[in-house]
Amino acid sequence: MDATPRPEIDHLSDMRTPIEGSKRVYAPVPGHPDMAVPLREIALSDPKEAPVRVYDTSGPYTDPNVKIDLEAGLSPVRQSWVEERGGVEHYTGREIKPEDNGFVNATHAARVFPSTRQPMRGVADAPITQMEFAKAGIITREMAYIAARENLGRQQAHDLAKEMRADGEDFGAAIPEFITPEFVRDEVARGRAIIPANINHTELEPMIIGRNFLTKINANIGNSAVTSSVEEEVRKLLWAIRWGADTVMDLSTGRNIHTTREWILRNSPVPIGTVPIYQALEKVKGDVAKLDWEVFKDTLVEQCEQGVDYFTIHAGVRLQYVPLTAERVTGIVSRGGSIMAKWCLTYHKESFLYEHFGDICDLMRKYDVSFSLGDGLRPGAIADANDAAQFGELETLGELTQVAWDKGCQVMIEGPGHVPMHKIKENMDKQLKCCGEAPFYTLGPLVTDIAPGYDHITSGIGAAMIGWFGTAMLCYVTPKEHLGLPNADDVKTGVITYKIAAHAADLAKGHPAAKIRDDALSKARFEFRWLDQFNLSLDPDTARAYHDETLPKDAHKVAHFCSMCGPKFCSMKISQDVRDYAAQKKEQEQGMNEMSEKFKETGGEVYVPQSS
Amino acid sequence: MDATPRPEIDHLSDMRTPIEGSKRVYAPVPGHPDMAVPLREIALSDPKEAPVRVYDTSGPYTDPNVKIDLEAGLSPVRQSWVEERGGVEHYTGREIKPEDNGFVNATHAARVFPSTRQPMRGVADAPITQMEFAKAGIITREMAYIAARENLGRQQAHDLAKEMRADGEDFGAAIPEFITPEFVRDEVARGRAIIPANINHTELEPMIIGRNFLTKINANIGNSAVTSSVEEEVRKLLWAIRWGADTVMDLSTGRNIHTTREWILRNSPVPIGTVPIYQALEKVKGDVAKLDWEVFKDTLVEQCEQGVDYFTIHAGVRLQYVPLTAERVTGIVSRGGSIMAKWCLTYHKESFLYEHFGDICDLMRKYDVSFSLGDGLRPGAIADANDAAQFGELETLGELTQVAWDKGCQVMIEGPGHVPMHKIKENMDKQLKCCGEAPFYTLGPLVTDIAPGYDHITSGIGAAMIGWFGTAMLCYVTPKEHLGLPNADDVKTGVITYKIAAHAADLAKGHPAAKIRDDALSKARFEFRWLDQFNLSLDPDTARAYHDETLPKDAHKVAHFCSMCGPKFCSMKISQDVRDYAAQKKEQEQGMNEMSEKFKETGGEVYVPQSS
Repeated sequence: MDATPRPEIDHLSDMRTPIEGSKRVYAPVPGHPDMAVPLREIALSDPKEAPVRVYDTSGPYTDPNVKIDLEAGLSPVRQSWVEERGGVEHYTGREIKPEDNGFVNATHAARVFPSTRQPMRGVADAPITQMEFAKAGIITREMAYIAARENLGRQQAHDLAKEMRADGEDFGAAIPEFITPEFVRDEVARGRAIIPANINHTELEPMIIGRNFLTKINANIGNSAVTSSVEEEVRKLLWAIRWGADTVMDLSTGRNIHTTREWILRNSPVPIGTVPIYQALEKVKGDVAKLDWEVFKDTLVEQCEQGVDYFTIHAGVRLQYVPLTAERVTGIVSRGGSIMAKWCLTYHKESFLYEHFGDICDLMRKYDVSFSLGDGLRPGAIADANDAAQFGELETLGELTQVAWDKGCQVMIEGPGHVPMHKIKENMDKQLKCCGEAPFYTLGPLVTDIAPGYDHITSGIGAAMIGWFGTAMLCYVTPKEHLGLPNADDVKTGVITYKIAAHAADLAKGHPAAKIRDDALSKARFEFRWLDQFNLSLDPDTARAYHDETLPKDAHKVAHFCSMCGPKFCSMKISQDVRDYAAQKKEQEQGMNEMSEKFKETGGEVYVPQSS
Repeated sequence: MDATPRPEIDHLSDMRTPIEGSKRVYAPVPGHPDMAVPLREIALSDPKEAPVRVYDTSGPYTDPNVKIDLEAGLSPVRQSWVEERGGVEHYTGREIKPEDNGFVNATHAARVFPSTRQPMRGVADAPITQMEFAKAGIITREMAYIAARENLGRQQAHDLAKEMRADGEDFGAAIPEFITPEFVRDEVARGRAIIPANINHTELEPMIIGRNFLTKINANIGNSAVTSSVEEEVRKLLWAIRWGADTVMDLSTGRNIHTTREWILRNSPVPIGTVPIYQALEKVKGDVAKLDWEVFKDTLVEQCEQGVDYFTIHAGVRLQYVPLTAERVTGIVSRGGSIMAKWCLTYHKESFLYEHFGDICDLMRKYDVSFSLGDGLRPGAIADANDAAQFGELETLGELTQVAWDKGCQVMIEGPGHVPMHKIKENMDKQLKCCGEAPFYTLGPLVTDIAPGYDHITSGIGAAMIGWFGTAMLCYVTPKEHLGLPNADDVKTGVITYKIAAHAADLAKGHPAAKIRDDALSKARFEFRWLDQFNLSLDPDTARAYHDETLPKDAHKVAHFCSMCGPKFCSMKISQDVRDYAAQKKEQEQGMNEMSEKFKETGGEVYVPQSS
């Protein structure tokens, strides 16, 4: 391709093998022989145990049969899907301008993505968005794909004995036993789920966000004015999806924003979200007063053409709400929210995002970019939770949801923030009510402010709870939140913590198939199948490493004891003895009964009932 | 003392300075000029901000004015408290036997604690236990001490403006605005709280466990047959209390149990709990069939005399419940539970712990050892949660609670285990109902089974929730749970995670003073007081280290920006501008009003109302 040395991101050896003990496999999509959905299959050492299949977000990277070339990007599979349903045109896109990359000079410019292509956009009134197709009664390929993907494990769950089936409290959700393409269509049509899939992000493996589907998680990455590079960001993307991020937000600021995003999009099998106001602000060199509709619109077009799947738009930060934050402990902590608040106060007029919301819808519709209506006034401290500013904005987001739906756009709603446990449910209930059941997408929430360095945990607690209550996607928080930029370890810790929260939520909601993995792992644990226990876990590498610290020998991986109690004093072992004993007792009793039956058959009677 | 080289545990430099940014101080105990309760005071860099005082479990180790000699143990402060109220005698204790240390030979024997002393025990019917004093209407020194300790921050909370006060949902708890000694007495008398304080653990700084007090946490330590040493265990104790463990359980098995425990008790300012059946089993060389009442009783006496503050007694594992576990995914996972189950099945008779429960009460009463009634049939997998075995045992624990109370003994109840979120509250409600509101002491619960290596998090989620619902003490789980023995880092991670859970619970319950620390930290965060933010956190060392990774310079600790956004693009900064702007606007408006008033005063009128 070119003769310049390939960047560091090309060394992907650590990303190309599947997670320990598993392999990437594909399941058919009924009615679509040319499509297949990816899964990760974990083989078990006991031949009597079926392999366990789990949802896989890692993309083609973990498939050894796929040739990966980051310089070319992933295969644009969805190109033909979009083209075949019509209503779109290819056209010459907007030219890249110096401000798109923060006026970076030649010395600091990141290498641009090698190839370019013409973007697509919707034409006239033909359906373009998934919501428009859904409302028109049309099941798209994306919907069929998603139905197959979400059906994972449900047949197995359906076949379970009654006492092993899932139970739960779903707080009014409507999770079906099986997911049909028609169900997907219906949920999208009524706005209760979204399929973030820009028609220009053709590399995507489609997924859905809605409370009647698996709870999803998002990981944030992004370079900043202070540190990090393009290579690091692409590596973070691959790392995040390897461990389970369902979507990734690129929150880059500073220079090389456009170039970084292009590398990310062309190599991402998961939806990418952004906050366009960040880039718009870079284009006016950080001067909030210079922001206006034109520069914002220009940024939206740029990102729509690149293929960003959802935009955080802080259109709910209305002038009237800003003074409500003045007495807060931490004021406005959302970056987008504070930018818009400052703009409103500078001109003492209504936000241009609010004023131009209809125009924004019209633009985003042409590319099927989904809204993530930002909670610019979310609380940044538990003292500020559920206050007038936060809930005022939420009501406006509800209004805007209706506007966007009427324009055919898909919408989800962002949620807090810092919220003590007793105020979490009110957030969920109010969101469902105000926003017509549009999917909720929450950051945490953090249930206390006193543990910087551990905010993956303070927020993981709130995330599990709000996920249970009905949040469709949980935005991760890493241990570095409030303190610094996450490195690869932090990204992994954040993702695993949020996979825990999302899975705990699915279990509690009574998702029919969620329990299969827990049961398989617990069974392996009980039967001392150590390798199976590691491989079934969210992070086999860490599980094995921890076990190695105490019992490093290979023989210990098949040993019928663990380090906590040692060989002669193990509760699992004793408990198995109890089970054997109980079984033996039962057999004896059965034997006695059989003897007794035989005795009766031979006509013997010991006890002769008195005739009355 | 002696000429042999001092063991490694003597090098305590890392344990003797208080946590970064704080110092140990003492608050008076009203009516007791000779007593004072320890606190940790965090000074703030802003002279307008009062220092923040937090609960301190670290003991005299963090007080530079106290001379520490691990070979001598801590000062036996409570000796005179116990003696002055009478009803006890000093006597020649039980002789140490080879089986007490697992028949360890001279080569492997740990060095014995240098000094010995005569134990005390209760005589006749005079009140001995805190519950007996409480029922007799007597406020002990321990109760007065605890009232002062638990009152921390309440005056400050009381003085707050109305809108900054705590709110919460306490699910029927009765948390008062101030804690009086009389309130402590009353809670102990009615069994709703316990003060674990063996009369022979005279080194103790008394604390209370009950749902109307601060939520407490326990850390487990203990050597095992496989690994670890006396020195490691004492270091783990000090490490655990440094970071906030309110009680510590010594779960040692194998050799040197007695010796290890003596070092731990003599140097522990927090209550120590044990599971006596573990040691009893060692005494019969691991052969469950050889366990009997005599060897168990002998073990209880041994540990009562040493000063253990609470015993886990699995007397609820009745013969009739054992078969109920046979079809479980993970059978019986409690070590104590499986030992007793095996014993019951071996002899096909009722557990000797159940049969001799009255005798156990009589013995424990004489030393005021509190019961921690063990949940030997707790679920080890979410599939087994809330089943007949678990709840059957809980009902028996309720019966036993009444027996123990009638005998004057203090009681808490152990709880699960592995429980999905939607089944947690039922555990709490059932425990309160079955056990007459005796304090609940839960392990986690873990809300999913699929994350070995991260079980501090899977359990921290459940712990925060059940703490909110009313659990009085949360037993920590470390990242190594299910995989290996925790090292110092794991102990710290477990303790911090559980401090988060306990604090989140206190916030959600509406504990009047819990919010003070959150508000102080959030205010420091908003005002870019980085050092204050670190020092107010649960783990200043980690917070600072994470900040250093991105912005290592000292200047950055006072910089008005952070690494996430950089200097020119910071939401906190913008938000402060908004606040200034709002204030200015308000001033302007006020100015206008004043102008207008002045105008009126000078008699000027622009608008002249029409006379009707």
